[in-house]
Amino acid sequence: MEDKRSLGARTLLFPTPALVVGSYDADDRPDVMTVAWGGICCSKPPSVMVSIRPSRLTYANIMLHRAFTVSVPGAAHVREVDYIGQVSGRDADMFAVTGLTPVPAGSVHAPYVGEFPVALECRVTHVVDLGAHTLFVGEILDVKADATALDSEGKLDIEAIGLVTYIPGLERYFGLGPSLGKAFEVGKAFRSG
Amino acid sequence: MEDKRSLGARTLLFPTPALVVGSYDADDRPDVMTVAWGGICCSKPPSVMVSIRPSRLTYANIMLHRAFTVSVPGAAHVREVDYIGQVSGRDADMFAVTGLTPVPAGSVHAPYVGEFPVALECRVTHVVDLGAHTLFVGEILDVKADATALDSEGKLDIEAIGLVTYIPGLERYFGLGPSLGKAFEVGKAFRSG
Repeated sequence: MEDKRSLGARTLLFPTPALVVGSYDADDRPDVMTVAWGGICCSKPPSVMVSIRPSRLTYANIMLHRAFTVSVPGAAHVREVDYIGQVSGRDADMFAVTGLTPVPAGSVHAPYVGEFPVALECRVTHVVDLGAHTLFVGEILDVKADATALDSEGKLDIEAIGLVTYIPGLERYFGLGPSLGKAFEVGKAFRSG
Repeated sequence: MEDKRSLGARTLLFPTPALVVGSYDADDRPDVMTVAWGGICCSKPPSVMVSIRPSRLTYANIMLHRAFTVSVPGAAHVREVDYIGQVSGRDADMFAVTGLTPVPAGSVHAPYVGEFPVALECRVTHVVDLGAHTLFVGEILDVKADATALDSEGKLDIEAIGLVTYIPGLERYFGLGPSLGKAFEVGKAFRSG
């Protein structure tokens, strides 16, 4: 064990996801933004959290409609994910620029990205102002997935999809690495029972 | 673009992290648990969220001391991470079993895992009951890192560390994959300016 050095108060955690949040504005125009501050936060009801600055169009949209989607990209769309993270829907039609397709969610009033392999449809249940960001909790009402994103057993085919992870502190995206083993199995070596 | 199929209300999002939350019990015994429901949730104050079931010892500990750590493992410790996710501190001394070392955090009353490359020291700022899980927001007061986890510029050396990501729906851990490019750069191709 090494002695550790202090780096100060920083948002240094890895991996983080690269998620695209979809919403409609007041005129029902589809908007998207990329967030790395997000993740699953409850198993029952199944819920996801995303943190968004109040200055963002997406913030206003979610406050208005109390609904959003989370589109989960595969590795093929890292350029689109990065672009969507750079531009505001107030300044550009990101769907037109990227050629991605806004698809109306079936269970909430929000659009998802048709070309991404997986999308979560969410109804806002909690809004928590944390400072620079507001944390939105969304109950996941449905998950939509491409058939090609699933294997023959209906499980996620992560090797076909690839993934995009964002590493804070490096500001760099990485893809899927090797399997490190099955959860609830690889740690069994420590159990004496 | 394929037509999507509906998978129902599920916590299907990727990647998620595999984080080890450290806390002290009422007798100041160090406890750890693994969580995948967590992530950065605010830039200012820098904050991290972890979701924990109220039945867990860690829940009681955090409610008591209003403090926790988040130890971020490298790929070398996936077996320990998995074991810590299977066992309760009420039933086993996970530090003794794994040989990992509880190190008192400098800025809060909670222990981190000395052998993991990075640790976040957190003071609880928000507690949100979501149902099966309670979401804790912790302000990150300090980050501790091994010198060998940083490169010569003081940036995270993610290739030296490796990472552990957990993929819900597969219940499998994966390591670091290839770089997919620099954030705020790979998407520039879509910008006409």
